[in-house]
Amino acid sequence: MEKLKVAVLGLGTVGSGVPLILKEHQEKISLVTGVEIVVEQALVRDEAEKVDLAKHYDIQLTTDYQEILSNPEIQVVVELIGQIEPAKTYIIQALESGKHVVTANKDLLALHGKELVETANKHQRDLYYEAAVAGGIPILRTIANSLAADNITCVRGILNGTTNYMLTKMANEGWSYEQALDEAQALGFAESDPTNDVDGIDAAYKVAILTQFAFGMSIDLADIDKKGIRGMSSDDIQMAQQLGYIVKLLGSSKKTNGSVSAEVGPVLVPADHPLASVQNEMNAVYVQSSGVRESMYYGPGAGAKPTATSVVSDIITVAKNIRLGISGHMFNSYASETVLTKDEDIESKYYFSVNVEDKVGQFLKLTQIITEAGASIDQLIQQKSDGKQARIVAITHLMTKAQMAEVAKQINRVSEFELVASYQVWTD
Amino acid sequence: MEKLKVAVLGLGTVGSGVPLILKEHQEKISLVTGVEIVVEQALVRDEAEKVDLAKHYDIQLTTDYQEILSNPEIQVVVELIGQIEPAKTYIIQALESGKHVVTANKDLLALHGKELVETANKHQRDLYYEAAVAGGIPILRTIANSLAADNITCVRGILNGTTNYMLTKMANEGWSYEQALDEAQALGFAESDPTNDVDGIDAAYKVAILTQFAFGMSIDLADIDKKGIRGMSSDDIQMAQQLGYIVKLLGSSKKTNGSVSAEVGPVLVPADHPLASVQNEMNAVYVQSSGVRESMYYGPGAGAKPTATSVVSDIITVAKNIRLGISGHMFNSYASETVLTKDEDIESKYYFSVNVEDKVGQFLKLTQIITEAGASIDQLIQQKSDGKQARIVAITHLMTKAQMAEVAKQINRVSEFELVASYQVWTD
Repeated sequence: MEKLKVAVLGLGTVGSGVPLILKEHQEKISLVTGVEIVVEQALVRDEAEKVDLAKHYDIQLTTDYQEILSNPEIQVVVELIGQIEPAKTYIIQALESGKHVVTANKDLLALHGKELVETANKHQRDLYYEAAVAGGIPILRTIANSLAADNITCVRGILNGTTNYMLTKMANEGWSYEQALDEAQALGFAESDPTNDVDGIDAAYKVAILTQFAFGMSIDLADIDKKGIRGMSSDDIQMAQQLGYIVKLLGSSKKTNGSVSAEVGPVLVPADHPLASVQNEMNAVYVQSSGVRESMYYGPGAGAKPTATSVVSDIITVAKNIRLGISGHMFNSYASETVLTKDEDIESKYYFSVNVEDKVGQFLKLTQIITEAGASIDQLIQQKSDGKQARIVAITHLMTKAQMAEVAKQINRVSEFELVASYQVWTD
Repeated sequence: MEKLKVAVLGLGTVGSGVPLILKEHQEKISLVTGVEIVVEQALVRDEAEKVDLAKHYDIQLTTDYQEILSNPEIQVVVELIGQIEPAKTYIIQALESGKHVVTANKDLLALHGKELVETANKHQRDLYYEAAVAGGIPILRTIANSLAADNITCVRGILNGTTNYMLTKMANEGWSYEQALDEAQALGFAESDPTNDVDGIDAAYKVAILTQFAFGMSIDLADIDKKGIRGMSSDDIQMAQQLGYIVKLLGSSKKTNGSVSAEVGPVLVPADHPLASVQNEMNAVYVQSSGVRESMYYGPGAGAKPTATSVVSDIITVAKNIRLGISGHMFNSYASETVLTKDEDIESKYYFSVNVEDKVGQFLKLTQIITEAGASIDQLIQQKSDGKQARIVAITHLMTKAQMAEVAKQINRVSEFELVASYQVWTD
């Protein structure tokens, strides 16, 4: 059987999974593609490092990318180094050398996707990156193919496994933020510097890519409002639960009258909503559209084997395209002018959690602030007081993001108020 | 822009949705396919019937299928008549006349899929039927494309919206089976003869198609064990809830050592499992595989707009294939010899619910029956007695289907025992 030869850049956990999966499922893959896909070469930092793995799968190791670029037998380059450079240069050089590219690099796609897609297009090569968003969930291909007939209005998802694990433990076990972070780090979910996870940056990269697929719009990372879960109070999680909600960190992208707004932040999701049942490190993407109305895609967001499986499914697509002679078509062919929604046109319900000095008239004061911003309150609850301080929690009716900002500003102006949290409440 | 002309057979609720969605999303569809897709002709039973609709979308109505077959401008036939005949003949004639076919006909695909696929293959035409399984959920395309790199071990799903609606109401509102059925009929979910839904036949069709995609195996409908929810006791649903389970009607297909077993039946699903949160008429398919491990696909299983959207996504695929010159490739190219798993090799935990005469020694007797079958009990609970009769509920450890059948047989042999239910309990 004919061979399709692949080079893998980076033999880390995901990279090592690629030859494993190609071997394990060789029979089925050959049946579907008509070729045998093999990892021929791998780029590593140090040739001494992966000798056993290379021997086992008969992979030539190299520390010199030129050896891969100049090898005419290599038809596909799989980039799994991560970060921006040298990954970006390597991908561009691969495309310019006539090789197809598969990558799982969300940072790169979110920040430089347009340039990479244009380069692939120019050289009529394939560029696939299903694993960049929500690891094992085939959400990009689903949006590009199955929802092509549909008009997506909103995409919201649990896009970061680390923070979902932390929030699950805080909700189910009553852990504090610090406990949850320690445990996530001990389990290897969170890096020693958890910034990208807990501040919502990782999720924002994925939101940028989802926005390209769902709405055909390229959104700058700076235009995605990022609110993480850093330092989140477990009191608020418990409070939300009492009110019938589970707090989830959601990445969302929404279309309103042809414009788009994207953000990452904690959201109070109704306890009986499918997203609320997504536990621990699992991810899920919930899509609203005018045809199908609602659909959800659930699976592991990371992990060596799920991510490697997703990478291999992209390699299979490349293999099929080569065989059919249809390489070079865009993964996502939906493109539309990028227009951002104004804060005055973004609507949601909000949850405000405020520490107040425990004295008469605080309910009235908070109500006034919200009313003066033109919004109104649906639920208002005071939690137990320690005699000096009490916590007031308010859930509003629909209000705009601009009004929310105004309310937050006014709360912060009152010396005896401390705004602990202002989260979105799920709205359909 | 070039036009791709389509004929729709049957302008019922789904059929009427097709021109609607093609019109509503025309811009996006043209962007993705490079052509304008239009419904040119429609086959109806009575030309007087759909005059307004036809006028609105500029569709030629006909009662004579030959007019469509002999129209060289029609490139795609969309079959939405349902049932076996004349749908089957129409599809075969369309393929033989060189037209591509899209259908949502699950009965036909489950019973005659092999013949239809062979006909399409012979004439190098496209045959797509994404909407045949779980309406708005793109599960077939996901299995065929995104999970091609994976080794699926088990597919289980809530595949029938009517029964899921009924079970949701029985669980959440305490309705009886009869109440739930009445309401499902009043809402138009259930037919006046609900047999196909409540006896698990509808779900079994879908299981047959899922088995083809997940394992490449053609399973006869007769080889799918069908246990429905007809007459289900709400006591058992409440009992399951107390034990931490939600009862769902699942269609399942499982691979064990290269053989496959498929069945439809009520299953006790742990309350915190994602399938347990699938409420009302929604569907979901939960896939276990060696690479991605677990993933779930959730959405509407029926309904005019979701189903029509799915049909249009198939038409878009046909349009893309025509444009790329790659028509005639199989929707599902995974094929493997069909081998059925023996009942001795099918393992599950089971839930037995038994009405007993309320006297000493009944626990012992039931325990003996289960032990003698070579199985063992995990939980054993007696519900309140009315003085004469009590109900005993047992959940077993893993046992084989053959052992389960033996236990059921022995229980039925005891004159003071009445076996009310024997359901599977979810096992990973």
